[in-house]
Parts: sequence; structure tokens; C-alpha cells
Amino acid sequence: MSDLQRTHTCGQLRKADAGSEVTLSGWVDTRRDHGGVIFIDLRDRYGKTQVVFNPEYNSEAHQQASSLRSEYVIAVKGKVAERPEGMVNPDLDTGEIELFVDELEILNTCETTPFEITADTDVSTELRLKYRFLDLRRPIMQKYLAFRHKICQVARQYFDENNFIEVETPFLTKSTPEGARDYLVPSRINRGQFYALPQSPQLFKQILMVSGLDRYFQIVKCFRDEDLRAQRQPEFTQLDLEMSFVREDDIITIVEGLMVDIFNKIMGKEISAPFPRLSYHDAMKLYGCDSPDLRFGMTIEDITDIAKKTEFKVFQKVAESGGQVRGINATGCAILSRKEIDELTTFVNQFGAKGLAWFKVDDGGLTSQISKFFTAEAQSEIKERFNAVPGDLLLFVADKESVVSQSLSQLRLNIGKTNGLINEEEFNFSWVVDFPLLELNEDLNRYDSLHHPFTSPHQDDLQILEERPLDVRARAYDIVLNGVELGGGSIRIHRPDIQKRIFKLLKIDEITAQKRFGFLLEALKYGAPPHGGIALGLDRMVTILLGLDDIREVIAFPKTQKATCLMVDAPSDVDEKQLKELGLSLRKPD
Amino acid sequence: MSDLQRTHTCGQLRKADAGSEVTLSGWVDTRRDHGGVIFIDLRDRYGKTQVVFNPEYNSEAHQQASSLRSEYVIAVKGKVAERPEGMVNPDLDTGEIELFVDELEILNTCETTPFEITADTDVSTELRLKYRFLDLRRPIMQKYLAFRHKICQVARQYFDENNFIEVETPFLTKSTPEGARDYLVPSRINRGQFYALPQSPQLFKQILMVSGLDRYFQIVKCFRDEDLRAQRQPEFTQLDLEMSFVREDDIITIVEGLMVDIFNKIMGKEISAPFPRLSYHDAMKLYGCDSPDLRFGMTIEDITDIAKKTEFKVFQKVAESGGQVRGINATGCAILSRKEIDELTTFVNQFGAKGLAWFKVDDGGLTSQISKFFTAEAQSEIKERFNAVPGDLLLFVADKESVVSQSLSQLRLNIGKTNGLINEEEFNFSWVVDFPLLELNEDLNRYDSLHHPFTSPHQDDLQILEERPLDVRARAYDIVLNGVELGGGSIRIHRPDIQKRIFKLLKIDEITAQKRFGFLLEALKYGAPPHGGIALGLDRMVTILLGLDDIREVIAFPKTQKATCLMVDAPSDVDEKQLKELGLSLRKPD
Repeated sequence: MSDLQRTHTCGQLRKADAGSEVTLSGWVDTRRDHGGVIFIDLRDRYGKTQVVFNPEYNSEAHQQASSLRSEYVIAVKGKVAERPEGMVNPDLDTGEIELFVDELEILNTCETTPFEITADTDVSTELRLKYRFLDLRRPIMQKYLAFRHKICQVARQYFDENNFIEVETPFLTKSTPEGARDYLVPSRINRGQFYALPQSPQLFKQILMVSGLDRYFQIVKCFRDEDLRAQRQPEFTQLDLEMSFVREDDIITIVEGLMVDIFNKIMGKEISAPFPRLSYHDAMKLYGCDSPDLRFGMTIEDITDIAKKTEFKVFQKVAESGGQVRGINATGCAILSRKEIDELTTFVNQFGAKGLAWFKVDDGGLTSQISKFFTAEAQSEIKERFNAVPGDLLLFVADKESVVSQSLSQLRLNIGKTNGLINEEEFNFSWVVDFPLLELNEDLNRYDSLHHPFTSPHQDDLQILEERPLDVRARAYDIVLNGVELGGGSIRIHRPDIQKRIFKLLKIDEITAQKRFGFLLEALKYGAPPHGGIALGLDRMVTILLGLDDIREVIAFPKTQKATCLMVDAPSDVDEKQLKELGLSLRKPD
Repeated sequence: MSDLQRTHTCGQLRKADAGSEVTLSGWVDTRRDHGGVIFIDLRDRYGKTQVVFNPEYNSEAHQQASSLRSEYVIAVKGKVAERPEGMVNPDLDTGEIELFVDELEILNTCETTPFEITADTDVSTELRLKYRFLDLRRPIMQKYLAFRHKICQVARQYFDENNFIEVETPFLTKSTPEGARDYLVPSRINRGQFYALPQSPQLFKQILMVSGLDRYFQIVKCFRDEDLRAQRQPEFTQLDLEMSFVREDDIITIVEGLMVDIFNKIMGKEISAPFPRLSYHDAMKLYGCDSPDLRFGMTIEDITDIAKKTEFKVFQKVAESGGQVRGINATGCAILSRKEIDELTTFVNQFGAKGLAWFKVDDGGLTSQISKFFTAEAQSEIKERFNAVPGDLLLFVADKESVVSQSLSQLRLNIGKTNGLINEEEFNFSWVVDFPLLELNEDLNRYDSLHHPFTSPHQDDLQILEERPLDVRARAYDIVLNGVELGGGSIRIHRPDIQKRIFKLLKIDEITAQKRFGFLLEALKYGAPPHGGIALGLDRMVTILLGLDDIREVIAFPKTQKATCLMVDAPSDVDEKQLKELGLSLRKPD
């Protein structure tokens, strides 16, 4: 048991405390020996305080302090003193004072750390994750975790004030229909059977609406056994909500209110709602993707009609075979060298584009290797379509729609970043709405849900559901922040007859439907109200709000890309005895 | 899409709203046809409103309303009217008004429900769990879920105000050292390896203290694969916290503050802290258990010393062979018949007691079949020890300590309940402290941790750790409410040398220790601060605060005793393909 009990934190003492006797606890951040006096910056979560061991003030404590090393844990009792003039440290909240130590207790020692506990560190991610307990001791990481906590706190308060009830949904449950693989959990008591960890509480929140809960929310872990990409974790946190007797606008308004509240209370910034809404169709047309970054313009324009009329074979062929010729105006980029333009070509190649056509705009018209194939009239039409002025660079991709969209979407972002068109301080929210309900799965010769099978079609499109399924709009909406999809939701199907028609289109037969989500179908028969909701990716949201790129920075104990935890060493082998109890055995590799 | 959008909830309208035009949505709770007029009680989460379809007011709506059945989902637009004098319903918040309907929209129909949606229901638990979406539609269940939500909300605010940070710890992790079986999760990417679902965030929260987080909390799901008993669920929710640079008092004070806050803000009751503290030793002595119900007295007294001196062989033998003779005074129970006393004997039999000795106290002394074996002096000594007065009934068990304690503890509760000694309105908190650190595991010839292996021994007992391990006190504490353990915690070991000594006593060798919790041992080397914490069972706490017995009443989607979810039908079979991907196969039953 330690004898000294702290009276203050290391971020607390001010000039007004001078003269009082206090006890601090914390970690030895830095040690400086100066003319026989030992200065320690003592650190805890709340800040740093300069602690002085002066042999003339207290020789015993000074002598004891000589054994102190970085990251030792100590408690010190002493007297607060105002720092002499000229010695005030404006970088520290406690910079006006220092503590003259009477009594030192070493609470724990510390081996040499594999990296320094500083704000920034350039050690490898692997080392940081293995020694996460030290990595999280870095003040910046604690700031991130505290920020995340505040976001959740504000969100919960907001939902509470708006009559939402947080309900915990089960983790040991049944496969959910999200498309990715489930993590399975073998049951010992029910041998040979398995639970699934939820990919989302989707079905449970719909069930809660059938129960009349009216307004549900939850901040909840979800699980996806995917082959991992950079911004994915096998377990991730979702801010989940569902409301009854609502339309799209009600959900959108609630989410906008949350964002306004978060910015107001945590970021100290005013943002204005409502956020702009784009149809899926317009997003794809103008930005080539369904989560456009609206912090800058440079919209995509279509010149397929002009391309048809030119002598340029590449354009002609694509235009005539149902493809598209679209491009962007990289304003002021006519100064780019051939080499630089070649690099842009290589860039779009990775998205499937076979080439990048370009024109520099000058006083006369368009200049490039291919401008000879374009009549003066065509050139002027193109210039006009892009509002191009001398000094601009026009860039074109000709291919099938998906390749053109993806290439130009990425090219737009690339140039936007390179040319400093993006204000990194800005937080730009928007909604993308009117998604198609279905997409064609050519491999399986059926339709797939773009969102999930419980998404309601637009009332007006119900009559063409079977005849022209691809034209049916979903009552779905995505919220986008700075070009990143924060989350998506929809108004759900609440009538069993419509749910059956959708399953039919998805070629989910009745037996399968019954087995996979029979309980929801059953629930819909017993007075399900109209309802809808949304789920936001919390990890991603916090990451963007902090201006970071990697979601692992805002997760206390993240996993690697191979879904392992380097600190605890998970997953790991288990005893044969445990497997036997579960009625399982390991299969020999094929 | 529904045409009518609600403007108010069903619990909102008052006399002041009379005359205004509103739209309500909800479920048809009851329907009464009265002199050609149809009255509907329309229900949502917020209350009920009487809705009137009067053919003279609007004949179209009235005609449409004739098809309405229980639990249909409807929207109604109409005019609020003050109810005529004498027709006011004082049981409803909206009882002063009714709604005359101009427009009715049937949003969904409902099949005949398997049970009625009323406050109370006496249908089987199985039926309730299978149709949980209807069970949760019962207003009382919604009240429970809302209450649980409020508890969490108040707790989170309390911790936030006290500088705690909520940090999410991983679900896909490694075996934790809690003693019960872990649920395992096979890894597909790391074939043949398994994650474990956490039994508690114990090691992670200690890691967070090593990281300098200082004050952590979390409301979090935990998992135990146990053979289930009544008050256990395979997944349960824990209110978990950990603090650095603290002693027992700091943790205890924080938890007491939380309880005061919850009672103040949610129960509308003042409770006073600090709560009384009992040592483990006293709790066992006076109440026979370590979670005593202090709402009534009737403490256990020991008469082993007197028993030794009597002629009663049963007592004598037990007393001389190291057993105990202890008893309670069932005040005023001398009126019990032989048959009733026999029933008490049968009651204690189930806890291993071979019999129940008894005396009725009258003016002269003690009367019973066995009183002849007791001298007048012994009888008077016994009377004195129990402060017994005529009309009392003294009940004794003679056996080894564990049997005596358990039998009398249960007998005390039984009589306390039967005789109305317990004030069911009272909430009685207490702390049990000074637990032994270790208990002897006779089967395995080693010591087991009473709490867990990371619990710190008392500083004063460190010197006897190896010589008299069973006398070492743990720095552990349990919080007890009305005789139920709400949770327990401890000050942890923060020095690697002491942790090693404990592992040695527990016969956990270095390789095993390294494998199971190597990361914690590693972390302790790098400047771990003194720290401690506690975990409270949220499900149990909410259950008791609501005055309920069954934790399943406060869990939205609980599992059965066989760990199944009757609503979604989990666990269930999985495809051979899924197993193959995981590198697993089902083992044939032995």
C-alpha cells in the first residue's frame, strides 16, 4: 500500500496554489539534472508538473531521486512554489509553478521502453500494437480515446433527450443477412450447433419497432469475418438507431441534429443543417461515386454526344458501343508537363481505364496530340461544357460507365488534393438519396439488394417492381462526410406481402427465407409499424473528426490486417479438451 | 408510404389541446362499440388515447373503423375534444380528452396474437420468449427497458462527471482467467486458432491503468459458457470500472456516489452513504454467508461452547470433532406447529444439514423433545445468548462449518420472508470486506484465488504469504444489496515480484502464466501504477431495483436455461461449407 495519496493531478496546480502542500502521482516524463538539482516532469493523464529535488531543500528526497528513470511511477509530497520570473513555461498549463519535494515514494520501476513515450512516434505499427499499453500512454493517444468517449457521451445524451431508448441486442445470435461472413461461436450445451456474432443489430432493431419501442438506439460492437482491408476491423462499433412511424426526413433530421450537437459541444464549431442532398444518379454523374467529396467542385462532364461526332476513333468507338466519354477540368493545370500527365494516366490505369485523353486550353482552342481530330466547333463545344479558360487542362476517360466513373472519381480526388483545392479544416456533410433498390448479379443471374433485403422500395415504384426492377428506387440514404460514407440506412418494409415480393426478386425461396429470418417475417404479421433507421460507423466518424486516416488510432486495442491482436496474442491455439467439449475437431488442411 | 404523419404521441394530449387538429399513430389496444359509436384505445410507448369513430361526426371513417381488430396499426387524424363531465378517465394521462376521427389509415393488420398485450400475462415463459416481439409490446416490459436505459444513462453521466473515460475493450480476444469456460470463436484467416469471448474486461482494464488512463469505465457485455442456473445468462452486462493511484476507500466511495445518484435521479429516493461495512469473517459468523440481507436482524449465534457441556449426544459429538453448533432466534415463532417445524427441517436438509434442533422459549425455560439433555444453567445461557423471550423459537444446526453456515443463512432468509421481517420497499446496501485471498482446493492440492489471481494481498499480510496463505487477507470488496451480491472488486497487484509469488501459491508455472496472461506480466514491468476497480452486474442490479426476481425481465432478448434464443432459433446448424472454411469438422458423439 502506498503511503502517499495524491491530492491533485499533474494538470491541476496554478499560481494560486503556491505555498500549499500537495501530493502528486504519475510517471517520470523527463529528468534534467542542473547544477546539482534534479528536475522531473511528472506526467499523468491530466498534464505535467515540474517537480524539483533540491538538495538544499530536502537532501534525503534529492538523494533518493537520483535513482529515478524514465517512466518510473512515483508519488511526491511537497510544497507548491511560483516559478521565478523568466522561468515560467507557457507550454504547460502548470507552467507557472513547480513542486519542491519533501517526500518521494517510488511506486514502481520501469524497464527500458521499446520506444519513447512522446506525442509523436515513428516506430512501426507492429511495435506500437504489441506494446499497446505503452503506446496508449502517449498523451496524443489518450486525447483520441477521451475524444471518442465524449462523442459517445454527447450522442447518448442527444438520443436520450429525443426519447430514444438504448436497448442491448444479443451477441450470441443467428446469422444476419449483411452479406459478409459471420463469426461463428460453437455451442457446448447444444453440441454441433453454432451461434453467430452479429454483423449488425438490423433484425433486432426492426423487432424492437414491431414491439412498439418507437425510438431505439445503441452504440454497439459488430463483427465481420472479412478479408481485411485498411479501414476495416473484424470488430467495429456502430451507432445504430431505428424509429417508428417515420419517413426519410425524420431519420435524416435526427442524424443532422446529432451532428450539429457533436460539432457544437465537442468541436466548438457551428455547422449548419440541413445538409445538401444529392440523388444517387446525380452523385454518379457529377462525381463518379456515391460518396462524393463536396469540399471542392471539378465536377465530371459528359461529352459522349460530342465524341460521336469527332474523327477521334477511340472516342467514336466507345461512344457508339454504349460506353461513355466523360472528363474533368483540372483548372489551371495546363502547366503540367508531359511526364506529369503520363503519371496521371498511370494513376487511372489502376482503375481499369485504358488511357487518359487530354487537352490544354489556350487562347485559340484545345491543344494536344489529338486535337487535330476535333473540329473547331467541337473544341468550342467542349470548352463551353467545362467553362474552360486558357490555362486549364481537360482530362477524359472513354470506357464503359463503371470504369469511367471510378477512374474520374479517383482522378478528381487526386488532382483536388495535389492542387490544394481541399480545405482540410472543412467538414462537409451531405446525403445521397434515391439509391436503386437492386443491382444485377450477373454471375448468379439474379438481383442483389444494394442495401439489404428489408429496404423499402419507393411507393411510386411498387407497380414496376417485377417488370423493371433495376429502375426501382430504394427508400435508402447514405450520409457522407468529406467524401467518406459515414453510414447508411433506409425505411424498411413493414408489410409481409411486399417483403415476399422482394425475396422473390432476390431468388430467396420461402424455405431459405424462413430459416434465415423467419422470426422477422413472423413479426411482420403481428402489427409491424412503418419504420426506418440508420447505422453510422463510429470508428470512421471519430477518425475523420480528428483529422486522422487510420481507424486504428481511435480504437484502444485494434487488430492487424490479419485479424490478430499482437498484444494478447489472439487468436491462439486451444486445448484438445476444449475442442472435444464443443464436439469439434480440427480438419487437416486439404 | 403512409399519408398521415403523427403530430403527437398517444400520451401527450391534454385538456389544453381541445379543439386542435392532430394525427396520432399506434396500436389498437381495445375496441368498444357503444350505441353505434366505435371507441378505440390507441396505444403507443408513451400512453393511450381514446379515439372515437362517430358515424354522425364522420361516417366514412366510422365505416372503415369497423374492420379494426386488436393490434392493428393505424394512423388517425381528427379533432381533440374535451370529454363530457363524468366521462373523464383518471387512470389515463390523456383521460381528459378524446379524439374524434376524420381520417383513418390502416398501416398494418395483425393476426390473432398468441397472448394478449396487457400489463400482466400468465402465459408460459417459453411462449413469451418465442414471441418476444409481442411480449415486449406489453407496456410493463417497455417500462423495464426504459428504466434500464435510464440507469445506464445516469451511470455514464456520473462517470463522465468524475473524469472517467469509457473505453471499448475487444470481444475477439484471448481466454481470461475468470474460472468459467470461455466461448470460443474459430478464426478463418488464422486456421486452427481461436479467439475467446471475454468473461470480463479484467486484463484490459488493468492494461489501461498501465497506460495511464487513470479512470476507466465501461458498460459491456461479457460471456460465460456455464451450465446455466436461474439467475445466469450466457451473455450478461457488466458495469466495469478501474482507477489508478487509489485505495479501497476510493473505489467504494465512487460506487456509493453512483448509487446515491441513481436513487436520487431515477428512484426519487434518498439513500445515505457511506454504506455499512462488514468483514467477511463477521458476515459468515453473523449471517452464514458473504452477501447478507441486512434488512432484518436474526443473527446467527454460536453455542458450540455450551453444546460441549450438555448431555445431548448429537451436539456433543459435533462440538468435539471440530464442528459447530449454531442457531437463530425465530422471534415469536413458538406458535409454530410440529408439522411446520418439520417443514423447516426438510428445508435445511437440502443444504446438507442432517437435522434441525429446536427449543420453544416459555416462562420457565426451553421446551422441546431434547430439553431434558440441557441443564437449567445451559438453558439459561442459551436464552441469554439469543436474548430470547417467551414465545421465541430457537433453531439449531450442528455440523461442519460450511453446512451450518449455509443452512442457517437460508433458514434465516426463509423465516425472515415468511414472518414479514423484510421491508420489501427497503434498499439496503452494504460492503463485505477483508475477504481471504485464497481458499484451499483439496481436490487439486493447491490454493485457489477467492477473487482472481490479480487481487492484491493486504500489505500487512505479505510476510505470511508463504507460511500461512489461508490467513492472508485480500484487498477485495463486494457490494451487497438486499442480500444479493451486486458486484465485487479489488485493489490489484501492480508489482511483478508479488504477482510471481501469488502464481507460485496457485501452482501456475511460469510457462502457463506466460501463455495465459503474459501481456499483463509484461505490462507490469513497464511502470504499472497502483490500481484497483470493481465490476457490477447490471442485469441483476436493474432487476432488484425494479423489485423483480428474474433477470430475464430486464433483458430485451434473453436466452433460456439451455442457452437458446427461442425467438431467432439460435444456436442452429451451419453449412458444411462454413465449417470447412474454418478448418473444423463435427466430432461424432463418443
